[in-house]
Amino acid sequence: MQGTCRLCADALLPYVKRLLEATGSPEDIAATVAQHLVRSDLKGYTSHGIYQLPGYLQKVEQGEIVPAARPEVTRETSSTAAVEAHAGWGLYAAMWCMQLAVEKAHASGLGGVTMVNSSHIGRVGAYVEYAAAQNCIGLVLRGGGGRGRANALPFGGAEPALGSNPIAMAVPAADGKHFVGDFATTALSNGRMQIVRATGGTLPPGCIVDRAGQPSTNPADFFDGGKHLVFGGYKGYAVSLLTCLAGGLAGTYSAAEKRMSGTYVQAISIEAFQPVDQYQEAVAAFLEGIRSTPPAAGFSEVLVPGDLARRHEECHLREGIETPRPFWEKLIALGKRYNVDWHGIASEYD
Amino acid sequence: MQGTCRLCADALLPYVKRLLEATGSPEDIAATVAQHLVRSDLKGYTSHGIYQLPGYLQKVEQGEIVPAARPEVTRETSSTAAVEAHAGWGLYAAMWCMQLAVEKAHASGLGGVTMVNSSHIGRVGAYVEYAAAQNCIGLVLRGGGGRGRANALPFGGAEPALGSNPIAMAVPAADGKHFVGDFATTALSNGRMQIVRATGGTLPPGCIVDRAGQPSTNPADFFDGGKHLVFGGYKGYAVSLLTCLAGGLAGTYSAAEKRMSGTYVQAISIEAFQPVDQYQEAVAAFLEGIRSTPPAAGFSEVLVPGDLARRHEECHLREGIETPRPFWEKLIALGKRYNVDWHGIASEYD
Repeated sequence: MQGTCRLCADALLPYVKRLLEATGSPEDIAATVAQHLVRSDLKGYTSHGIYQLPGYLQKVEQGEIVPAARPEVTRETSSTAAVEAHAGWGLYAAMWCMQLAVEKAHASGLGGVTMVNSSHIGRVGAYVEYAAAQNCIGLVLRGGGGRGRANALPFGGAEPALGSNPIAMAVPAADGKHFVGDFATTALSNGRMQIVRATGGTLPPGCIVDRAGQPSTNPADFFDGGKHLVFGGYKGYAVSLLTCLAGGLAGTYSAAEKRMSGTYVQAISIEAFQPVDQYQEAVAAFLEGIRSTPPAAGFSEVLVPGDLARRHEECHLREGIETPRPFWEKLIALGKRYNVDWHGIASEYD
Repeated sequence: MQGTCRLCADALLPYVKRLLEATGSPEDIAATVAQHLVRSDLKGYTSHGIYQLPGYLQKVEQGEIVPAARPEVTRETSSTAAVEAHAGWGLYAAMWCMQLAVEKAHASGLGGVTMVNSSHIGRVGAYVEYAAAQNCIGLVLRGGGGRGRANALPFGGAEPALGSNPIAMAVPAADGKHFVGDFATTALSNGRMQIVRATGGTLPPGCIVDRAGQPSTNPADFFDGGKHLVFGGYKGYAVSLLTCLAGGLAGTYSAAEKRMSGTYVQAISIEAFQPVDQYQEAVAAFLEGIRSTPPAAGFSEVLVPGDLARRHEECHLREGIETPRPFWEKLIALGKRYNVDWHGIASEYD
């Protein structure tokens, strides 16, 4: 019963949605959450896709996620809002916040929204992709930290103070090949670390230290009390701190505990500055020029952020999403438990 | 006639200002430009300080910088503006843009301004420091690129496509120790490269390749046809591209030539999200916690971006700005040429 199977995204999406509805999410919220998860798998962000679903549903059962909670604006100006998520789905609330930011950007030029009290917001690229599809430049900063917290070292420090603190940014191009950057501000994400360990590989130098603070390329050292290093030395460290400080505009801080965290999403309306078509054609041409650069030794081509995810999506739409059979069986068990039919989603592969 | 002398900032500032006025800058523009230059020296950004003045004045004489030009808003919404600088002082125009962004942020929550057609904008940290002093989070993205342009390689590429593309970000703290990140998105700035070459040092690995595309730690290789690498691998590459794309909102692009460049400055009003005092106290406490982290081997302390510049400033205000004597003589010669008195600025040092 080992091996992998392939899941058809078109059938998987309504299955995930019905599972979410069966556990108390209203139809529209279930649709947004399901789309986030399946799209993450399509784009190759396996660790942020349906792999999360069993854990999420457990949190719903335990009352940690309130599946019908709806975000609420608690403070507002013409271009900003502070949003309280009432312990609801982070994947829904963060998209709701970006939709609000885009709406404000179309009305006033810019929109910036902070969010508190949501569950996990998943793949941060999802929100900036939405902004780009609405003719905006999208930006997400999601951070948290404080002395002794989380598992990434501040630059030059021997104890952790920062989380993986992801950022995302997207700019639309006329040819649809949008620029989409989406990454942890640690040198490697936790998800990537797990994959390297599972495949028996070694890490690039400069990504982690072991429990004694010594540089290591063995992923097992990370899981044995090791710590992340930030990407790009003191420069990446500055970006990681910025995610905490901008996120902290959500009010999720404590001066007494010296901690700060939160989520900040922003949209910049292209229309406010330039004719949209003209700008997006220039973006497409500029990025095509970058892609046409001859590759350096050891590289087969020059890519633009977003290209790999687009290729994954094309491949997975065509060939299905490859999933370990034991995980698929876990999803079937969930369907049986909630009386949701799972037939027609998976095809055997090997 | 070698050696160094020390310049008193209080006397240097009016001298630089009078030099600028003598060459056609109106009083207020001269004051802003002089302040930018002297403050850069105070903060230890020597390559962006008075060192630039002789070259700048030459550009004024040659008509490349129009010293009395004033920026003009060409497109505007409640939270955005596009600004035409009319070939004037970049140091003045960029500050003018950030002042406008801060004004809009205080009125509507956010302010974002793009700028075209200015000269060099110098130390980008200057503009975000202004925003922070006005109770805003400040952001500057300044970029340019296109296949075959500038001198930094895109990630995985063998030919340049990106400039040094600096970014800056600042967040105010209640104790005045503001978070100020300000750096090139290349692994090293050109200025740092010149200093390492002048002092006979070697570069850290991963900063440049030589003319043949081979990794090098010899700064001479950079000046002999070598190229910059971006900081932080594909993540820093994404940030560098973002500076081009956001800067490009200024309209400084050509689809036919596949190039894009420009300056984008932004302010986020803290007041729009949180009580200003409460947030800034939390920022100060959070950053103090980070600074109190025990240092890793090889480090004597953990710093927050902005700390080093603050120390430089305290030291230079107390002890004067150390300057090579030949450079000081060049400045005296400029004073003689424009009939501006230079006495009382420098004290001999060694």
